[in-house]
Amino acid sequence: MRQAGRYLAEYRAVRAKHSILEICHTPELAAEVTLQPVEHLGVDAAILFADILLPVEPLGLGLSFSEGAGPLIERPIRAPEDVAALPDVDPPRDLGFVVEAVAACKHALAQRAPGTPLIGFAGAPFTLASYVIEGGSSRNFTLTKRFMYQHPEAWHELLRRLADLVGGLLGAQARAGADVVQLFDSWVGCLAPEDYRRFVLPHSRRAIELAQAAGVPVIHFGTDTATLLELLVEAGGEVMGVDWRIPIDQAWARTGDRAVQGNLDPAALFAPRPELETRVRDILQRVGGRPGFIFNLGHGILPGTPVDNVRAVVDLVHAFA
Amino acid sequence: MRQAGRYLAEYRAVRAKHSILEICHTPELAAEVTLQPVEHLGVDAAILFADILLPVEPLGLGLSFSEGAGPLIERPIRAPEDVAALPDVDPPRDLGFVVEAVAACKHALAQRAPGTPLIGFAGAPFTLASYVIEGGSSRNFTLTKRFMYQHPEAWHELLRRLADLVGGLLGAQARAGADVVQLFDSWVGCLAPEDYRRFVLPHSRRAIELAQAAGVPVIHFGTDTATLLELLVEAGGEVMGVDWRIPIDQAWARTGDRAVQGNLDPAALFAPRPELETRVRDILQRVGGRPGFIFNLGHGILPGTPVDNVRAVVDLVHAFA
Repeated sequence: MRQAGRYLAEYRAVRAKHSILEICHTPELAAEVTLQPVEHLGVDAAILFADILLPVEPLGLGLSFSEGAGPLIERPIRAPEDVAALPDVDPPRDLGFVVEAVAACKHALAQRAPGTPLIGFAGAPFTLASYVIEGGSSRNFTLTKRFMYQHPEAWHELLRRLADLVGGLLGAQARAGADVVQLFDSWVGCLAPEDYRRFVLPHSRRAIELAQAAGVPVIHFGTDTATLLELLVEAGGEVMGVDWRIPIDQAWARTGDRAVQGNLDPAALFAPRPELETRVRDILQRVGGRPGFIFNLGHGILPGTPVDNVRAVVDLVHAFA
Repeated sequence: MRQAGRYLAEYRAVRAKHSILEICHTPELAAEVTLQPVEHLGVDAAILFADILLPVEPLGLGLSFSEGAGPLIERPIRAPEDVAALPDVDPPRDLGFVVEAVAACKHALAQRAPGTPLIGFAGAPFTLASYVIEGGSSRNFTLTKRFMYQHPEAWHELLRRLADLVGGLLGAQARAGADVVQLFDSWVGCLAPEDYRRFVLPHSRRAIELAQAAGVPVIHFGTDTATLLELLVEAGGEVMGVDWRIPIDQAWARTGDRAVQGNLDPAALFAPRPELETRVRDILQRVGGRPGFIFNLGHGILPGTPVDNVRAVVDLVHAFA
């Protein structure tokens, strides 16, 4: 959640001239905005400027980003035939621009912030499936679940392909220099645990194993996963992401030997400073210095977030450590 | 979740001629659509046709319902002054049309489905606050949380007023003949447990106590509440609503002596019949005949739900009992 975004004036300046996809497709621009949070906020790691949906771009479904409505898929997948018709994709080749962006970021970091690790990422199979089926964001994921229930074979085929795609892309990021990669299952919390186990877990595991085969640790991130934590651990990843709906010590007690990442509510960054600081301290105290904790937000930083508050949190965490 | 809606052809026929607010404001129409699920689906209880947002209508903020975008508030609450400027409301007087709708439903039920209980309902203070602050539905509830953190006194004043309003309306529904009332906290699951305890719990408790003072049991409903269950119990209610994110037996083990309601994923109604039946049976088997379980969906029925599948679930539950 250290990615550059509209909350940063420096990012808005770049976005005034370039679309999100242009930035992603231009390694120098991607590197420039990737370094912004490191240089302007003092965070400990850079996160590649990219979008969780980039892996689906070479599928040719018409991915675009609209101001306000978020990602849109022009030709969504609605029937088993649509899955069968998907083209074969070779991630390092067909998503070469992401690989180049990683290399450009590594180069820029070596010059301007030596020693700062780079985190790569991509959307998880379920979250990607939800976008390509719904055609965009969704509240209830009705079309996604309907497809999953009505066409289980085509569903598993779709998720297998997405897992290979995402795992391949994460592996390629790692081979290009990413020190860690993150599998982003933003919307998986809409599922009942048994549905996750049956329809999603094997595919997330496959994507994670493909990334790990490239020799990097994997952060397995989701939101609204309080009842899925043990299953997310089963799917894999060295670090488990945790949102704010569950106190971090309770979550960590359930993820066993995995490291954990989280769990400040991004909305807390709008709180008055003393209230914000109390919340940050509460998380740090619950963790109690146990090694393997990565302080982070529980989900993406919100538009309009006061940058001074972000800096204050970074400083407070550093002072506490 | 037995309320009439667009999934029913009989309801669509009424809606072709009348808006949602017209139906709510016309007791005979409200009674007509309230009886539709009882007569056409065979459910065991009628749920008043109403909207969770009706209690805020007399606040004069400009409530309307748009096709597609859902409820809209023309003049949202954005500052402490907006709370101070809210008019005094007397629920039985200013929401007399809801009270009359309850009476009309009771009358119609006595004639056409004698012995069928009537469930009244209204939105809970937090969920109503989220609508009047955001101006409509929301994904992240940023404005709501920002108001809560930045203006805690005005927040508590707003929720106190909403609690009196909702509690007063639920009490009036009970006095007009509703056999049970339901407090609908649809979006409360966006909160961290400590935020719920501090900013919401006392107000939900107040609303529930006002309803109980009218002599009826209260169903306390929310979604995405797996980490809030104990706190919802603390706030009150004889029956706790549970969504599909947590297996019903695990949820019930945590709500102690309360009855529970739930927990089928509304999306499961799109599954092929054998798959749907497996899911219904799984819930009933987990409950194992323990008294105090109300079979229900975990949230509202989705547009486009096949009515035959709804009937099949009703029949299956009846056959199992």
